Amino acid sequence: MDFYFDFLSPYGYFASLSVESVAKRHGRTVTWRPMLLGVSVLKVMGLKPLLLTPLKGDYILRDVARTASRLGLSIGRELSSPPVSSLVPARAVHWVAMNHVEHTGPLVHALYAAIWRDGLDLQTPEQLRHLQLPPGLDVDELVLATASKEAAELLRAEVDASLSIGIFGSPTFVVDGEPFWGFDRLDHVDEWLKSLQPATNRSPAL
Amino acid sequence: MDFYFDFLSPYGYFASLSVESVAKRHGRTVTWRPMLLGVSVLKVMGLKPLLLTPLKGDYILRDVARTASRLGLSIGRELSSPPVSSLVPARAVHWVAMNHVEHTGPLVHALYAAIWRDGLDLQTPEQLRHLQLPPGLDVDELVLATASKEAAELLRAEVDASLSIGIFGSPTFVVDGEPFWGFDRLDHVDEWLKSLQPATNRSPAL
Repeated sequence: MDFYFDFLSPYGYFASLSVESVAKRHGRTVTWRPMLLGVSVLKVMGLKPLLLTPLKGDYILRDVARTASRLGLSIGRELSSPPVSSLVPARAVHWVAMNHVEHTGPLVHALYAAIWRDGLDLQTPEQLRHLQLPPGLDVDELVLATASKEAAELLRAEVDASLSIGIFGSPTFVVDGEPFWGFDRLDHVDEWLKSLQPATNRSPAL
Repeated sequence: MDFYFDFLSPYGYFASLSVESVAKRHGRTVTWRPMLLGVSVLKVMGLKPLLLTPLKGDYILRDVARTASRLGLSIGRELSSPPVSSLVPARAVHWVAMNHVEHTGPLVHALYAAIWRDGLDLQTPEQLRHLQLPPGLDVDELVLATASKEAAELLRAEVDASLSIGIFGSPTFVVDGEPFWGFDRLDHVDEWLKSLQPATNRSPAL
């Protein structure tokens, strides 16, 4: 299943911690698809960023804090501070997904923990040196690659592709073409996958 | 607990069907607070109506259909048709809440079922005659009252009040000042109310 998210989205962080267990329960794997909501989605939709939307912004701060507390997570970042810059982390993930795919999931977790649990800013590739990287991923190679034209182009293509299939929010899960938007829809994804199972077990004679 | 909703919101309809059972479980009652999102909230927020927002609108149609199906509800209204006019139903409810409070909940259910289950349009007070009204509520009185200045003023005051406390979406539940936005947050309301209970049972000696 495809997991679309923006590193600036705390709900994407929450979802990143449980999406694999939902997928695994149904024999699926997760394809990690970081994108950039700010680049084009908000422009197409004619919206302001969530936290800058009057009324809603204040509520979201409250809901994020409450949701983190329900999940037993601590947030090491002032929620009302300027948005996380998600360009560098997203480029790093797309380059790794293309070149060392086995490290993709662990890298997403390392990046999300650094940003939301530890409150790090990752605005330049050099700052990736502050991460606890997955064993086997070379930090010098990662820093160089994240600054490369290849990484930039991979991300640009991904942002265009996600927009073309109508992804507008983080997180969004896509299961066999069916989109589910929002951390609170992960239960529905679970149910949806469960409902598909009888079909695959169905004998051809029926 | 306060239950804020707009009759044009199908998620408000879904929530209206279970909000009382959640409240009752914790010895609470529901105060029904229909408001009008379109009047001022969207203007303050600088947003377009949900279904007219590019990308999101299409998704919402899908999510509403999927959610109705999970709940075993049929929707007797074309989701992509023009928005429900919620002025008349909201005025009717506020007038009844002020004058025959015991009929408020049953009237909300009758209105929501008429609009979303049966697909009725309630654009004029006269159209309230097509409802299955709660026994004991006089339809002639209701039609006259809904057209009255009193009903209009009650609703206007409610819209102003909901905006002043930051309500921006339907449904929103407010429990002892704590706001929860969205049908999918009713579980959180349930948990929240449960978490308050040890405190009320605590002996003064502790």
